[in-house]
Amino acid sequence: MNDPSATPREHLLAALAEVIDERRSADPERSYVAKLQARGLDAMLKKVGEEATEAVLAAKDDDADALVSEMADLWFHTLIVLRARDRHPDDVLDELARRFGLSGVEEKAGREVAGQRSDK
Amino acid sequence: MNDPSATPREHLLAALAEVIDERRSADPERSYVAKLQARGLDAMLKKVGEEATEAVLAAKDDDADALVSEMADLWFHTLIVLRARDRHPDDVLDELARRFGLSGVEEKAGREVAGQRSDK
Amino acid sequence: MNDPSATPREHLLAALAEVIDERRSADPERSYVAKLQARGLDAMLKKVGEEATEAVLAAKDDDADALVSEMADLWFHTLIVLRARDRHPDDVLDELARRFGLSGVEEKAGREVAGQRSDK
Amino acid sequence: MNDPSATPREHLLAALAEVIDERRSADPERSYVAKLQARGLDAMLKKVGEEATEAVLAAKDDDADALVSEMADLWFHTLIVLRARDRHPDDVLDELARRFGLSGVEEKAGREVAGQRSDK
Repeated sequence: MNDPSATPREHLLAALAEVIDERRSADPERSYVAKLQARGLDAMLKKVGEEATEAVLAAKDDDADALVSEMADLWFHTLIVLRARDRHPDDVLDELARRFGLSGVEEKAGREVAGQRSDK
Repeated sequence: MNDPSATPREHLLAALAEVIDERRSADPERSYVAKLQARGLDAMLKKVGEEATEAVLAAKDDDADALVSEMADLWFHTLIVLRARDRHPDDVLDELARRFGLSGVEEKAGREVAGQRSDK
Repeated sequence: MNDPSATPREHLLAALAEVIDERRSADPERSYVAKLQARGLDAMLKKVGEEATEAVLAAKDDDADALVSEMADLWFHTLIVLRARDRHPDDVLDELARRFGLSGVEEKAGREVAGQRSDK
Repeated sequence: MNDPSATPREHLLAALAEVIDERRSADPERSYVAKLQARGLDAMLKKVGEEATEAVLAAKDDDADALVSEMADLWFHTLIVLRARDRHPDDVLDELARRFGLSGVEEKAGREVAGQRSDK
Protein backbone atom coordinates (compact mmCIF):
# COMPACT_ATOMS: atom_id res chain seq x y z
CA MET A 1 0.00 0.00 0.00
CA ASN A 2 2.97 2.27 0.44
CA ASP A 3 3.68 4.73 -2.28
CA PRO A 4 6.42 3.15 -4.38
CA SER A 5 8.08 6.55 -4.49
CA ALA A 6 8.33 6.57 -0.70
CA THR A 7 11.39 8.21 0.78
CA PRO A 8 13.82 5.50 1.83
CA ARG A 9 14.76 5.62 5.47
CA GLU A 10 18.29 6.49 4.49
CA HIS A 11 17.25 9.76 2.93
CA LEU A 12 14.77 10.74 5.55
CA LEU A 13 16.81 13.38 7.34
CA ALA A 14 17.59 15.11 4.06
CA ALA A 15 13.93 14.83 3.04
CA LEU A 16 12.86 16.36 6.35
CA ALA A 17 15.34 19.18 5.87
CA GLU A 18 13.65 19.90 2.56
CA VAL A 19 10.19 19.97 4.09
CA ILE A 20 11.39 22.33 6.77
CA ASP A 21 12.93 24.52 4.14
CA GLU A 22 9.72 24.66 2.13
CA ARG A 23 7.51 25.27 5.11
CA ARG A 24 9.47 28.08 6.71
CA SER A 25 7.69 30.63 4.57
CA ALA A 26 4.25 28.97 4.71
CA ASP A 27 1.23 30.33 6.54
CA PRO A 28 1.97 30.15 10.29
CA GLU A 29 -1.69 29.32 10.87
CA ARG A 30 -1.39 26.18 8.82
CA SER A 31 2.19 25.00 9.27
CA TYR A 32 3.87 24.16 12.55
CA VAL A 33 7.29 24.88 11.06
CA ALA A 34 6.14 28.27 9.81
CA LYS A 35 4.65 29.04 13.21
CA LEU A 36 7.93 28.26 14.97
CA GLN A 37 9.79 30.24 12.31
CA ALA A 38 7.52 33.24 12.93
CA ARG A 39 8.08 33.01 16.67
CA GLY A 40 11.84 33.08 16.23
CA LEU A 41 14.96 31.25 17.27
CA ASP A 42 14.24 31.25 21.00
CA ALA A 43 10.95 29.44 20.46
CA MET A 44 12.81 26.74 18.51
CA LEU A 45 15.45 26.42 21.19
CA LYS A 46 12.87 26.17 23.96
CA LYS A 47 11.43 23.21 22.09
CA VAL A 48 14.88 21.57 21.98
CA GLY A 49 15.16 21.99 25.76
CA GLU A 50 11.63 20.69 26.28
CA GLU A 51 12.00 17.68 24.03
CA ALA A 52 15.35 16.75 25.53
CA THR A 53 13.73 16.74 28.99
CA GLU A 54 10.85 14.64 27.70
CA ALA A 55 13.25 12.16 26.13
CA VAL A 56 15.07 11.90 29.45
CA LEU A 57 11.78 11.23 31.25
CA ALA A 58 10.70 8.59 28.74
CA ALA A 59 14.07 6.85 29.09
CA LYS A 60 13.77 6.87 32.88
CA ASP A 61 10.26 5.43 32.63
CA ASP A 62 11.64 2.65 30.48
CA ASP A 63 8.85 3.36 28.03
CA ALA A 64 10.59 2.56 24.77
CA ASP A 65 7.70 3.64 22.54
CA ALA A 66 7.49 7.01 24.27
CA LEU A 67 11.27 7.25 23.99
CA VAL A 68 11.18 6.74 20.23
CA SER A 69 8.42 9.33 19.95
CA GLU A 70 10.27 11.90 22.06
CA MET A 71 13.51 11.28 20.19
CA ALA A 72 11.62 11.89 16.94
CA ASP A 73 10.41 15.20 18.39
CA LEU A 74 13.90 16.08 19.55
CA TRP A 75 15.60 15.24 16.25
CA PHE A 76 12.91 17.10 14.30
CA HIS A 77 13.44 20.25 16.33
CA THR A 78 17.22 19.99 15.99
CA LEU A 79 16.67 19.97 12.20
CA ILE A 80 14.61 23.15 12.51
CA VAL A 81 17.38 24.82 14.52
CA LEU A 82 20.04 23.68 12.06
CA ARG A 83 18.01 25.23 9.22
CA ALA A 84 17.62 28.44 11.18
CA ARG A 85 21.43 28.63 11.29
CA ASP A 86 21.86 27.61 7.64
CA ARG A 87 23.12 24.15 8.38
CA HIS A 88 21.99 20.80 6.98
CA PRO A 89 21.66 17.43 8.70
CA ASP A 90 24.40 16.22 6.33
CA ASP A 91 26.78 18.59 8.12
CA VAL A 92 26.08 16.76 11.37
CA LEU A 93 26.38 13.35 9.73
CA ASP A 94 29.68 14.39 8.14
CA GLU A 95 30.96 15.57 11.50
CA LEU A 96 30.03 12.24 13.06
CA ALA A 97 31.65 10.37 10.16
CA ARG A 98 34.79 12.42 10.60
CA ARG A 99 35.00 11.63 14.29
CA PHE A 100 34.40 7.95 13.77
CA GLY A 101 36.55 7.50 10.69
CA LEU A 102 34.90 7.53 7.28
CA SER A 103 35.15 3.83 6.72
CA GLY A 104 33.97 3.48 10.03
CA VAL A 105 34.01 3.60 13.47
CA GLU A 106 37.21 2.68 15.14
CA GLU A 107 37.26 3.07 18.86
CA LYS A 108 39.45 6.12 18.41
CA ALA A 109 36.28 7.87 17.40
CA GLY A 110 34.71 7.28 20.77
CA ARG A 111 37.76 8.64 22.46
CA GLU A 112 37.64 11.74 20.33
CA VAL A 113 34.11 12.39 21.39
CA ALA A 114 35.13 12.08 25.00
CA GLY A 115 38.47 13.79 24.64
CA GLN A 116 37.36 16.91 22.95
CA ARG A 117 35.09 17.71 25.85
CA SER A 118 37.49 16.95 28.59
CA ASP A 119 36.58 20.13 30.42
CA LYS A 120 33.07 19.04 31.09
CA MET B 1 43.84 7.32 2.66
CA ASN B 2 40.15 6.86 3.15
CA ASP B 3 38.87 3.38 2.80
CA PRO B 4 36.93 3.23 -0.48
CA SER B 5 34.38 1.16 1.36
CA ALA B 6 33.62 4.14 3.58
CA THR B 7 30.19 4.22 5.15
CA PRO B 8 27.93 6.37 3.01
CA ARG B 9 26.34 9.24 4.84
CA GLU B 10 22.95 7.60 4.43
CA HIS B 11 23.94 4.63 6.53
CA LEU B 12 25.82 6.54 9.15
CA LEU B 13 23.25 6.41 11.93
CA ALA B 14 22.90 2.66 11.53
CA ALA B 15 26.70 2.32 11.44
CA LEU B 16 27.00 4.37 14.62
CA ALA B 17 24.37 2.20 16.29
CA GLU B 18 26.56 -0.80 15.46
CA VAL B 19 29.66 0.79 16.95
CA ILE B 20 27.77 1.65 20.09
CA ASP B 21 26.52 -1.90 20.26
CA GLU B 22 30.01 -3.34 19.91
CA ARG B 23 31.58 -0.97 22.38
CA ARG B 24 29.10 -1.32 25.20
CA SER B 25 30.98 -4.29 26.55
CA ALA B 26 34.48 -2.96 25.84
CA ASP B 27 36.98 -1.86 28.47
CA PRO B 28 35.60 1.29 30.14
CA GLU B 29 39.15 2.59 30.41
CA ARG B 30 39.56 2.55 26.67
CA SER B 31 36.10 3.19 25.29
CA TYR B 32 33.93 6.23 25.97
CA VAL B 33 30.78 4.25 25.18
CA ALA B 34 31.80 1.49 27.57
CA LYS B 35 32.56 4.06 30.25
CA LEU B 36 29.12 5.62 29.93
CA GLN B 37 27.59 2.14 29.86
CA ALA B 38 29.40 1.27 33.08
CA ARG B 39 28.20 4.46 34.74
CA GLY B 40 24.61 3.67 33.89
CA LEU B 41 21.53 5.23 32.35
CA ASP B 42 21.57 8.41 34.43
CA ALA B 43 25.06 9.26 33.23
CA MET B 44 23.86 8.91 29.62
CA LEU B 45 20.82 11.06 30.28
CA LYS B 46 22.87 13.78 31.96
CA LYS B 47 24.91 13.96 28.78
CA VAL B 48 21.72 14.41 26.74
CA GLY B 49 20.73 17.31 29.00
CA GLU B 50 24.21 18.79 28.82
CA GLU B 51 24.56 18.50 25.08
CA ALA B 52 21.09 19.93 24.48
CA THR B 53 22.07 22.98 26.55
CA GLU B 54 25.32 23.32 24.64
CA ALA B 55 23.51 23.12 21.32
CA VAL B 56 21.15 25.86 22.52
CA LEU B 57 24.11 28.05 23.48
CA ALA B 58 25.88 27.48 20.15
CA ALA B 59 22.69 28.38 18.28
CA LYS B 60 22.29 31.57 20.32
CA ASP B 61 25.90 32.50 19.62
CA ASP B 62 25.22 32.06 15.92
CA ASP B 63 28.32 29.90 15.76
CA ALA B 64 27.30 27.43 13.06
CA ASP B 65 30.42 25.29 13.33
CA ALA B 66 29.98 24.92 17.08
CA LEU B 67 26.30 24.19 16.47
CA VAL B 68 27.13 21.32 14.10
CA SER B 69 29.63 19.96 16.61
CA GLU B 70 27.17 20.17 19.52
CA MET B 71 24.40 18.61 17.45
CA ALA B 72 26.77 15.75 16.61
CA ASP B 73 27.36 15.30 20.35
CA LEU B 74 23.65 15.44 21.06
CA TRP B 75 22.67 12.96 18.33
CA PHE B 76 25.45 10.60 19.36
CA HIS B 77 24.27 10.53 22.96
CA THR B 78 20.65 10.03 21.88
CA LEU B 79 21.87 6.93 19.99
CA ILE B 80 23.53 5.68 23.17
CA VAL B 81 20.28 6.18 25.12
CA LEU B 82 18.24 4.46 22.41
CA ARG B 83 20.57 1.47 22.60
CA ALA B 84 20.30 1.39 26.37
CA ARG B 85 16.55 1.01 25.89
CA ASP B 86 16.86 -1.51 23.06
CA ARG B 87 15.83 0.85 20.33
CA HIS B 88 17.51 1.60 17.02
CA PRO B 89 17.86 4.89 15.14
CA ASP B 90 15.74 3.29 12.42
CA ASP B 91 12.85 3.27 14.89
CA VAL B 92 13.13 7.04 15.19
CA LEU B 93 13.48 7.49 11.43
CA ASP B 94 10.43 5.26 10.87
CA GLU B 95 8.46 7.29 13.39
CA LEU B 96 9.41 10.49 11.58
CA ALA B 97 8.53 8.91 8.22
CA ARG B 98 5.17 7.85 9.61
CA ARG B 99 4.39 11.34 10.84
CA PHE B 100 5.41 12.94 7.58
CA GLY B 101 3.90 10.38 5.25
CA LEU B 102 6.04 7.61 3.80
CA SER B 103 6.22 9.15 0.36
CA GLY B 104 6.93 12.18 2.07
CA VAL B 105 6.35 15.07 3.82
CA GLU B 106 3.01 16.62 3.29
CA GLU B 107 2.18 19.51 5.53
CA LYS B 108 -0.19 17.24 7.41
CA ALA B 109 2.93 15.81 8.94
CA GLY B 110 3.92 19.11 10.46
CA ARG B 111 0.48 19.48 11.93
CA GLU B 112 0.70 16.05 13.46
CA VAL B 113 3.90 16.98 15.20
CA ALA B 114 2.26 20.10 16.57
CA GLY B 115 -1.11 18.53 17.24
CA GLN B 116 0.01 15.59 19.26
CA ARG B 117 1.61 17.90 21.76
CA SER B 118 -1.15 20.42 22.01
CA ASP B 119 -0.83 20.60 25.77
CA LYS B 120 2.64 22.03 25.70
CA MET C 1 -4.01 47.94 49.45
CA ASN C 2 -1.27 45.58 50.50
CA ASP C 3 -1.79 43.74 53.70
CA PRO C 4 0.47 45.34 56.30
CA SER C 5 1.31 41.85 57.45
CA ALA C 6 2.92 41.17 54.11
CA THR C 7 5.29 38.23 53.97
CA PRO C 8 8.82 39.51 54.39
CA ARG C 9 11.15 38.60 51.59
CA GLU C 10 13.08 36.38 53.99
CA HIS C 11 10.14 34.08 54.50
CA LEU C 12 8.96 34.01 50.97
CA LEU C 13 10.20 30.56 50.00
CA ALA C 14 8.57 29.04 53.07
CA ALA C 15 5.38 30.99 52.34
CA LEU C 16 5.38 29.74 48.75
CA ALA C 17 5.85 26.19 49.99
CA GLU C 18 2.72 26.67 52.08
CA VAL C 19 0.70 27.93 49.15
CA ILE C 20 1.82 25.02 47.05
CA ASP C 21 0.87 22.68 49.84
CA GLU C 22 -2.62 24.18 50.16
CA ARG C 23 -3.25 24.26 46.45
CA ARG C 24 -2.22 20.73 45.61
CA SER C 25 -5.70 19.49 46.39
CA ALA C 26 -7.57 22.44 44.91
CA ASP C 27 -9.69 22.35 41.75
CA PRO C 28 -7.33 21.75 38.80
CA GLU C 29 -9.54 24.03 36.72
CA ARG C 30 -8.87 26.94 39.01
CA SER C 31 -5.38 26.36 40.37
CA TYR C 32 -2.22 26.03 38.34
CA VAL C 33 -0.55 24.05 41.13
CA ALA C 34 -3.50 21.66 41.34
CA LYS C 35 -3.44 21.26 37.56
CA LEU C 36 0.24 20.32 37.58
CA GLN C 37 -0.40 18.05 40.55
CA ALA C 38 -3.17 16.30 38.64
CA ARG C 39 -0.95 15.83 35.60
CA GLY C 40 1.73 14.17 37.70
CA LEU C 41 5.44 14.32 38.40
CA ASP C 42 6.55 14.21 34.77
CA ALA C 43 4.54 17.33 33.96
CA MET C 44 6.29 19.14 36.83
CA LEU C 45 9.70 17.97 35.69
CA LYS C 46 9.06 19.03 32.10
CA LYS C 47 8.39 22.51 33.43
CA VAL C 48 11.74 22.47 35.26
CA GLY C 49 13.48 21.55 31.99
CA GLU C 50 11.54 24.20 30.10
CA GLU C 51 12.12 26.98 32.59
CA ALA C 52 15.82 26.16 32.87
CA THR C 53 16.12 26.51 29.10
CA GLU C 54 14.22 29.78 29.16
CA ALA C 55 16.46 31.12 31.92
CA VAL C 56 19.49 30.18 29.83
CA LEU C 57 18.03 32.02 26.82
CA ALA C 58 17.23 35.13 28.87
CA ALA C 59 20.75 35.16 30.27
CA LYS C 60 22.23 34.85 26.78
CA ASP C 61 20.04 37.71 25.56
CA ASP C 62 21.36 39.83 28.41
CA ASP C 63 17.75 40.69 29.24
CA ALA C 64 17.97 41.01 33.00
CA ASP C 65 14.25 41.56 33.54
CA ALA C 66 13.40 38.45 31.54
CA LEU C 67 16.10 36.60 33.46
CA VAL C 68 14.54 37.51 36.81
CA SER C 69 11.14 36.45 35.51
CA GLU C 70 12.42 33.11 34.19
CA MET C 71 14.36 32.44 37.38
CA ALA C 72 11.15 33.09 39.33
CA ASP C 73 9.43 30.51 37.13
CA LEU C 74 12.28 28.06 37.60
CA TRP C 75 12.47 28.44 41.38
CA PHE C 76 8.70 28.17 41.67
CA HIS C 77 8.64 24.90 39.76
CA THR C 78 11.54 23.52 41.79
CA LEU C 79 9.41 24.20 44.90
CA ILE C 80 6.56 22.23 43.34
CA VAL C 81 8.89 19.31 42.64
CA LEU C 82 10.33 19.43 46.16
CA ARG C 83 6.79 19.26 47.56
CA ALA C 84 5.97 16.34 45.29
CA ARG C 85 8.88 14.51 46.89
CA ASP C 86 8.03 15.63 50.43
CA ARG C 87 10.85 18.08 50.74
CA HIS C 88 10.79 21.72 51.85
CA PRO C 89 12.80 24.69 50.55
CA ASP C 90 14.38 24.83 54.03
CA ASP C 91 16.00 21.47 53.26
CA VAL C 92 17.73 23.03 50.28
CA LEU C 93 18.71 26.14 52.24
CA ASP C 94 20.09 23.94 55.03
CA GLU C 95 22.09 21.94 52.51
CA LEU C 96 23.54 25.15 51.08
CA ALA C 97 24.30 26.42 54.60
CA ARG C 98 26.03 23.16 55.39
CA ARG C 99 28.21 23.36 52.30
CA PHE C 100 29.13 26.97 52.92
CA GLY C 101 29.53 26.77 56.69
CA LEU C 102 26.66 27.90 58.87
CA SER C 103 28.21 31.17 59.93
CA GLY C 104 29.10 31.49 56.53
CA VAL C 105 30.59 30.96 53.49
CA GLU C 106 34.22 30.22 53.55
CA GLU C 107 35.79 29.47 50.24
CA LYS C 108 36.00 25.85 51.27
CA ALA C 109 32.32 25.76 50.60
CA GLY C 110 32.82 26.62 46.96
CA ARG C 111 35.36 23.90 46.65
CA GLU C 112 32.98 21.41 48.11
CA VAL C 113 30.41 22.27 45.50
CA ALA C 114 32.99 21.73 42.81
CA GLY C 115 34.67 18.79 44.43
CA GLN C 116 31.68 16.62 44.99
CA ARG C 117 30.99 16.63 41.30
CA SER C 118 34.46 15.99 40.08
CA ASP C 119 33.25 13.54 37.47
CA LYS C 120 31.36 16.10 35.50
CA MET D 1 36.60 34.90 62.85
CA ASN D 2 33.26 33.28 62.13
CA ASP D 3 30.28 34.81 63.76
CA PRO D 4 28.98 32.36 66.34
CA SER D 5 25.50 33.49 65.35
CA ALA D 6 25.38 31.58 62.09
CA THR D 7 23.56 33.07 59.13
CA PRO D 8 19.88 32.42 59.65
CA ARG D 9 18.26 30.34 56.99
CA GLU D 10 16.17 33.34 56.00
CA HIS D 11 19.20 35.32 54.93
CA LEU D 12 21.01 32.50 53.26
CA LEU D 13 20.33 33.43 49.64
CA ALA D 14 21.52 36.98 50.28
CA ALA D 15 24.57 35.62 52.11
CA LEU D 16 25.35 33.32 49.21
CA ALA D 17 25.01 36.22 46.79
CA GLU D 18 27.64 38.04 48.84
CA VAL D 19 30.02 35.10 48.76
CA ILE D 20 29.61 34.81 45.03
CA ASP D 21 30.27 38.50 44.68
CA GLU D 22 33.46 38.30 46.74
CA ARG D 23 34.75 35.21 45.02
CA ARG D 24 34.25 36.31 41.44
CA SER D 25 37.63 37.99 41.44
CA ALA D 26 39.44 35.35 43.49
CA ASP D 27 42.09 32.97 42.18
CA PRO D 28 40.40 30.59 39.73
CA GLU D 29 42.73 27.85 40.95
CA ARG D 30 41.34 28.12 44.45
CA SER D 31 37.75 29.21 44.01
CA TYR D 32 35.05 27.39 42.09
CA VAL D 33 33.12 30.61 41.59
CA ALA D 34 36.19 32.36 40.24
CA LYS D 35 36.88 29.44 37.93
CA LEU D 36 33.36 29.59 36.48
CA GLN D 37 33.67 33.36 36.24
CA ALA D 38 36.92 33.00 34.30
CA ARG D 39 35.33 30.49 31.93
CA GLY D 40 32.50 32.87 31.15
CA LEU D 41 28.74 32.99 30.95
CA ASP D 42 28.32 29.90 28.76
CA ALA D 43 30.11 27.74 31.32
CA MET D 44 27.71 28.98 34.01
CA LEU D 45 24.70 28.32 31.81
CA LYS D 46 25.87 24.81 30.94
CA LYS D 47 25.92 24.12 34.66
CA VAL D 48 22.32 25.33 34.96
CA GLY D 49 21.31 22.93 32.18
CA GLU D 50 23.28 20.11 33.77
CA GLU D 51 21.99 20.63 37.28
CA ALA D 52 18.40 20.94 36.06
CA THR D 53 18.76 17.56 34.34
CA GLU D 54 20.27 16.03 37.46
CA ALA D 55 17.45 17.38 39.60
CA VAL D 56 14.96 15.84 37.16
CA LEU D 57 16.75 12.49 37.41
CA ALA D 58 16.86 12.58 41.21
CA ALA D 59 13.14 13.39 41.33
CA LYS D 60 12.35 10.49 38.99
CA ASP D 61 14.44 8.16 41.14
CA ASP D 62 12.42 9.27 44.17
CA ASP D 63 15.71 9.85 45.94
CA ALA D 64 14.78 12.79 48.15
CA ASP D 65 18.27 13.32 49.55
CA ALA D 66 19.78 13.41 46.08
CA LEU D 67 16.96 15.74 45.03
CA VAL D 68 17.79 18.20 47.81
CA SER D 69 21.46 18.04 46.88
CA GLU D 70 20.78 18.60 43.18
CA MET D 71 18.37 21.44 43.93
CA ALA D 72 21.08 23.05 46.05
CA ASP D 73 23.44 22.77 43.07
CA LEU D 74 20.81 24.21 40.74
CA TRP D 75 19.89 27.13 42.99
CA PHE D 76 23.56 27.91 43.61
CA HIS D 77 24.29 28.08 39.91
CA THR D 78 21.23 30.25 39.27
CA LEU D 79 22.66 32.69 41.84
CA ILE D 80 25.94 32.74 39.91
CA VAL D 81 24.09 33.49 36.67
CA LEU D 82 22.02 36.21 38.34
CA ARG D 83 25.23 37.84 39.58
CA ALA D 84 26.76 37.61 36.12
CA ARG D 85 23.79 39.66 34.88
CA ASP D 86 23.85 42.07 37.81
CA ARG D 87 20.80 40.73 39.49
CA HIS D 88 20.29 39.69 43.11
CA PRO D 89 18.26 36.81 44.55
CA ASP D 90 16.06 39.48 46.17
CA ASP D 91 14.95 40.48 42.68
CA VAL D 92 13.65 36.96 42.12
CA LEU D 93 12.03 36.82 45.55
CA ASP D 94 10.38 40.20 44.90
CA GLU D 95 9.09 38.98 41.56
CA LEU D 96 7.62 35.89 43.23
CA ALA D 97 6.10 38.07 45.98
CA ARG D 98 4.57 40.35 43.36
CA ARG D 99 3.02 37.41 41.52
CA PHE D 100 1.62 35.87 44.68
CA GLY D 101 0.49 39.06 46.37
CA LEU D 102 2.71 40.65 49.00
CA SER D 103 0.68 39.49 51.94
CA GLY D 104 0.65 36.32 50.35
CA VAL D 105 -0.33 33.92 48.14
CA GLU D 106 -3.81 34.10 46.87
CA GLU D 107 -4.66 31.62 44.21
CA LYS D 108 -4.65 34.48 41.72
CA ALA D 109 -0.91 34.26 41.92
CA GLY D 110 -0.88 30.73 40.64
CA ARG D 111 -3.03 31.75 37.76
CA GLU D 112 -0.68 34.56 36.90
CA VAL D 113 2.19 32.15 36.69
CA ALA D 114 0.21 29.95 34.37
CA GLY D 115 -1.42 32.78 32.45
CA GLN D 116 1.65 34.69 31.50
CA ARG D 117 3.02 31.67 29.71
CA SER D 118 -0.08 30.66 27.92
CA ASP D 119 1.82 29.91 24.75
CA LYS D 120 3.77 27.07 26.23
